[in-house]
Amino acid sequence: MQDALVERIDAALESAISARKLAPAIDEAARYAVLGGGKRLRPILALRACLAAGGEIDDAVPAAIAIECIHAFSLVHDDLPALDDDDLRRGRPTVHRAFNESVAILAGDALQCIAAEIAAESPRNPLPILREVLAGTRLMIDGQSYDTEGVFPDEVREEEDRLRLIHRLKTGALIRAACRCGGLAAEADAEILERLDRFGTAIGLMFQIVDDVLDETQSTEHLGKTGGKDRASGKRTFPSIFGLEASRTEIRSLAEDAVLQLDGLDPEGSKPLRDLVAMLAVRTR
Amino acid sequence: MQDALVERIDAALESAISARKLAPAIDEAARYAVLGGGKRLRPILALRACLAAGGEIDDAVPAAIAIECIHAFSLVHDDLPALDDDDLRRGRPTVHRAFNESVAILAGDALQCIAAEIAAESPRNPLPILREVLAGTRLMIDGQSYDTEGVFPDEVREEEDRLRLIHRLKTGALIRAACRCGGLAAEADAEILERLDRFGTAIGLMFQIVDDVLDETQSTEHLGKTGGKDRASGKRTFPSIFGLEASRTEIRSLAEDAVLQLDGLDPEGSKPLRDLVAMLAVRTR
Repeated sequence: MQDALVERIDAALESAISARKLAPAIDEAARYAVLGGGKRLRPILALRACLAAGGEIDDAVPAAIAIECIHAFSLVHDDLPALDDDDLRRGRPTVHRAFNESVAILAGDALQCIAAEIAAESPRNPLPILREVLAGTRLMIDGQSYDTEGVFPDEVREEEDRLRLIHRLKTGALIRAACRCGGLAAEADAEILERLDRFGTAIGLMFQIVDDVLDETQSTEHLGKTGGKDRASGKRTFPSIFGLEASRTEIRSLAEDAVLQLDGLDPEGSKPLRDLVAMLAVRTR
Repeated sequence: MQDALVERIDAALESAISARKLAPAIDEAARYAVLGGGKRLRPILALRACLAAGGEIDDAVPAAIAIECIHAFSLVHDDLPALDDDDLRRGRPTVHRAFNESVAILAGDALQCIAAEIAAESPRNPLPILREVLAGTRLMIDGQSYDTEGVFPDEVREEEDRLRLIHRLKTGALIRAACRCGGLAAEADAEILERLDRFGTAIGLMFQIVDDVLDETQSTEHLGKTGGKDRASGKRTFPSIFGLEASRTEIRSLAEDAVLQLDGLDPEGSKPLRDLVAMLAVRTR
């Protein structure tokens, strides 16, 4: 069923980009960025959250692929030389390496724009879904700026707090938005939305801590992106600040928190989300 | 009255950015980019088009400032070293010069996101206005890619056609969107929307040809941005392809076209738009 969802998401992404008839240079780079594999975690979460909230999958497809376009745009820009300066992504050259820097900047811009267009096409609750996608995007950009520029609000002084702020925004905000969008597409009530919100917050942080641990413990070849890069660049990560053991404990605890939130949802409809949490907690790439 | 509109626009921009409580580095750069002067042509057009279509100015303010944020984002990214590599904008260092490249990329991204958020807050016709802003943004990015990458659709082979395509998209699409958004904010009927559409198309192209002519004939000091840059960089411009005299003739002809479209609108309400066309045709910066 996961494979069927991924096929569905890939087909919808392909058709949404084709429909725009972008300028050739942008079109090619945008396809390369969006259709070049990836776990599709965020769109799967949006679709699964919609099903768990009693909705129809069709209603969540625009939100799901909008969020994947935002994720792809953020990777393209974050990989740029002026930001994280990465050469490898999903086992292939990054967009500015495969094409050039100007195309990477413009294709990222176009993907952000297309994402909002797609979100606004949602059959149910288009404006709330759009607002959710945009708020998640803005917070994600804030998070990237904390990570890259290192300029924090005055009240966030401790290294631990800064790291948590970065993770909550840079990775967490869009994952949380994906879960909330699923609920909005199902026209879920406030209580279910709140549960999906907390679920998304927990797995968003968990996902990033797992990422931090993998960067520390896995090879570049295995990851399909540059491994050991966080430590080499002196980046704040969970293992570097709290240690590997504490990071693993936090992962387990967040996985439990996430599953707990699902108790208020339909047991059968939410089972795939439980399975997903278990899988994400022990993933090795 | 123009000054009152500009004050209104500046205040709305300031308040829309403040409301987002962006990360400090992004907040500072976004303010620098958006609040650092500029002609405010696009938001003025949106507000004036709304009035000319019989609407209330308040209803067009979100669309107007959303479009100005898109314009600002496009300038920040287009000025980057990988694109037009400009050091000067509105008489001041460009964002990546005043701050750094990563902040410029992220602040541009944030401004695009905020623009969509603001457009979606329009009191009337929020979804159609949002779609208009996003379509204009996407076409503008396409136009920038034609200009920067020089990769055109197979059927656009002649230099003249390529130049017209670039101008229509890179500058024209957002100006046209501004005019249409004004009409949508006034809940104008299809005929008035079509007139505003043609009006916007004409002045969009006119505006860019005037810009091309000024780049050729005015000093950097006078323009507040690098003059003579198009010729120095071998860029396609109206004067370089058609000559200065033919460019001036085209400007006059487009100004007449534009004014003609206003004949179907309220004569008093559309008078400021006529005056604006006359002013734009003879501007010297």
